[in-house]
Amino acid sequence: MTVYLDNNATTIVDPHVFEAMEPYFVQKYGNPNSLHAFASETHPGIKSAMEQIYAGINAKREDSVVITSCATESNNWVLKSIYFEYILTGKKNHIMISEVEHPSVIATAKWIESMGCKVTYLPINNEGIVEAKSVKEYITDKTALVSVMWANNETGAIFPVEEIAAICKENDVLFHTDSVQAIGKFPVDVQSFPVDYLTFSAHKFHGPKGVGALYVKKGKELMPLLHGGAQMGGYRSGTLNVPGIVGMGKAIESAVEALDFEMTNIRAMRDAFEDELLKIKDTFVVTPREKRTPNTILISFRGIEGESMLWDLNRAGIGASTGSACASEDLEANSVMEAIGAAEDLAHTAIRFSLSRYTTQEEIDYTLKTVHDAVKRLRGISSSYAYAPEGHESGLAAHH
Amino acid sequence: MTVYLDNNATTIVDPHVFEAMEPYFVQKYGNPNSLHAFASETHPGIKSAMEQIYAGINAKREDSVVITSCATESNNWVLKSIYFEYILTGKKNHIMISEVEHPSVIATAKWIESMGCKVTYLPINNEGIVEAKSVKEYITDKTALVSVMWANNETGAIFPVEEIAAICKENDVLFHTDSVQAIGKFPVDVQSFPVDYLTFSAHKFHGPKGVGALYVKKGKELMPLLHGGAQMGGYRSGTLNVPGIVGMGKAIESAVEALDFEMTNIRAMRDAFEDELLKIKDTFVVTPREKRTPNTILISFRGIEGESMLWDLNRAGIGASTGSACASEDLEANSVMEAIGAAEDLAHTAIRFSLSRYTTQEEIDYTLKTVHDAVKRLRGISSSYAYAPEGHESGLAAHH
Repeated sequence: MTVYLDNNATTIVDPHVFEAMEPYFVQKYGNPNSLHAFASETHPGIKSAMEQIYAGINAKREDSVVITSCATESNNWVLKSIYFEYILTGKKNHIMISEVEHPSVIATAKWIESMGCKVTYLPINNEGIVEAKSVKEYITDKTALVSVMWANNETGAIFPVEEIAAICKENDVLFHTDSVQAIGKFPVDVQSFPVDYLTFSAHKFHGPKGVGALYVKKGKELMPLLHGGAQMGGYRSGTLNVPGIVGMGKAIESAVEALDFEMTNIRAMRDAFEDELLKIKDTFVVTPREKRTPNTILISFRGIEGESMLWDLNRAGIGASTGSACASEDLEANSVMEAIGAAEDLAHTAIRFSLSRYTTQEEIDYTLKTVHDAVKRLRGISSSYAYAPEGHESGLAAHH
Repeated sequence: MTVYLDNNATTIVDPHVFEAMEPYFVQKYGNPNSLHAFASETHPGIKSAMEQIYAGINAKREDSVVITSCATESNNWVLKSIYFEYILTGKKNHIMISEVEHPSVIATAKWIESMGCKVTYLPINNEGIVEAKSVKEYITDKTALVSVMWANNETGAIFPVEEIAAICKENDVLFHTDSVQAIGKFPVDVQSFPVDYLTFSAHKFHGPKGVGALYVKKGKELMPLLHGGAQMGGYRSGTLNVPGIVGMGKAIESAVEALDFEMTNIRAMRDAFEDELLKIKDTFVVTPREKRTPNTILISFRGIEGESMLWDLNRAGIGASTGSACASEDLEANSVMEAIGAAEDLAHTAIRFSLSRYTTQEEIDYTLKTVHDAVKRLRGISSSYAYAPEGHESGLAAHH
């Protein structure tokens, strides 16, 4: 049996999404910007995909949704354009991000910092959540941008972006949210709060790899990160990735259709799975489940290195992670656990299970059995578990 | 009958390329950077694709070939990183590009110019070719980068990049070449001349849209344009586009295998086609065919608006272009014709036919017949053709 529980890293392409993309490789291959039938036969597919994408986040026609190659590009674009327009020109001197943003935001912010901009890294509380009041605390009239993710990739923690966006608007500061982990997990409606920029990526909701997007509110247009042939209204040049766009459209439509299922059935399956995991002695979960996306569990097994657990799971055909896939080739501590201030040995014990609408109860049962076996085996050979003093979890709430 | 003669804009995906990509959507969908079998089952495909790509341009193992989302990204990356590292820091103050580069180079250079850098736009001669001596003329000890394309997308003109690279090396100036139109048209060997950066894009050689690359010579590493999760050795972050990479690998391998066919059979077909076109009265070709890629003809029909000709061709099922697809939604004069200094009415009469290894003689015969009909019809209603004085072609060599 194989079980895929690493859906926050990437997802299987929905077979219907692949079916929608398929005609745009060998049959309808024209460059949409050319002036002939080989080009125009791609237009209906692109048009309906763009309509699906606009509808998927409830964007207004007057707003822009610009197709990019991935969320990393979208995030780099927002931060770097703000740097060029506001920081490099001396109009502003400060941006804010959370300390647990995706590496594409953190590394870009660090680069901007190295160019002389002040960067505030907003802390998370002991539930792993950025609080809106900390934005209020650090915002100044020299702040150009606040960028806070909607849902954290590692814990699934949902951040109060509506509240943060309101504070930004009040202070005339631009607000960006990396919503990669939000689409398909809960309703995303850009008209429901004052968000200026919103990043998302197809491969996180059963679409193809290699295509992302950035929502840009009307009047908040950014200078391009990729200059060139003026595709995408001049905001993002490069030959349109037609199958990618078509796939993203179909994927977001299906993800929104499946929202109820995700928010009830998958949530219930996750909750029951988590209940069973927490029955294992010395296990810890940081963010309360009602403050998380419905598919995610980040759980620590005291005394068990995350990579060791991954190894046992993998041997049994189960794919999970110790946190972000982006950094997972390095054997580092989980960054959210570190940010919370967990003791180093605990930060190394986190395992993330992330479900999807394709996850079955049978897979969960099999995983649970495998975890039990692994805990028994690994704690049996764990010196840190044998010797660890009671109450070593540095303020983390112990469950059972 | 439909005939696709716009292969410089984009190409049909080789069915074998699509076949190679297909397993990486619904079956092998893991994120290659994760730590489990869903990830590692993508590794052999990526590995052999990277080997195919390295072999395709004869890169050394110690060099980097970094996968990007398109040539536009690769070109932006080179120019902007050079700007950050050399211009913004005050080490250098000058870059050079040709005046007929792809819009992704020109628009990026103009942006860099707007940030205070001096940009020289190297002229083309009356054959549409950038001369190496002009590089020598304008190079200074403050020049950071020379970027000259290997083959022009509009005319197919091959530029003396080996000679230009040698001049750059002599003067300790970095050299980049946009080789989008070179791969699959003639041998591309990065070890045969001192090139530092080389751009290419899969969809120009029967690979998928949405995947490009940048060759980076060892020791000439660039700061990233996309910061983040440190994929691609930290040079280009973002979840790997696995099917795209696999497709690019297969596509470059097939393109190199088909090189002989392209350089003999397609060239012969193109030459015979061109001979027939030039038998039409008042037709003009700028670049001599032996100085062009084997698949391209840019030809002017005096008195016939390019868009009118495209319309007649398209009605007959034939796809061609007036030049770059990137700008083809604007009814502008052909930029190469303009650069040569052709009279405005002539610059508006250029039509580009670009063949591929899928082009058949039957298609060419049908196109030729259609062109003849279109010339007759359009010149019959063309006031500019009826009234144009003899010898109005501003120095262009008239053929027949």
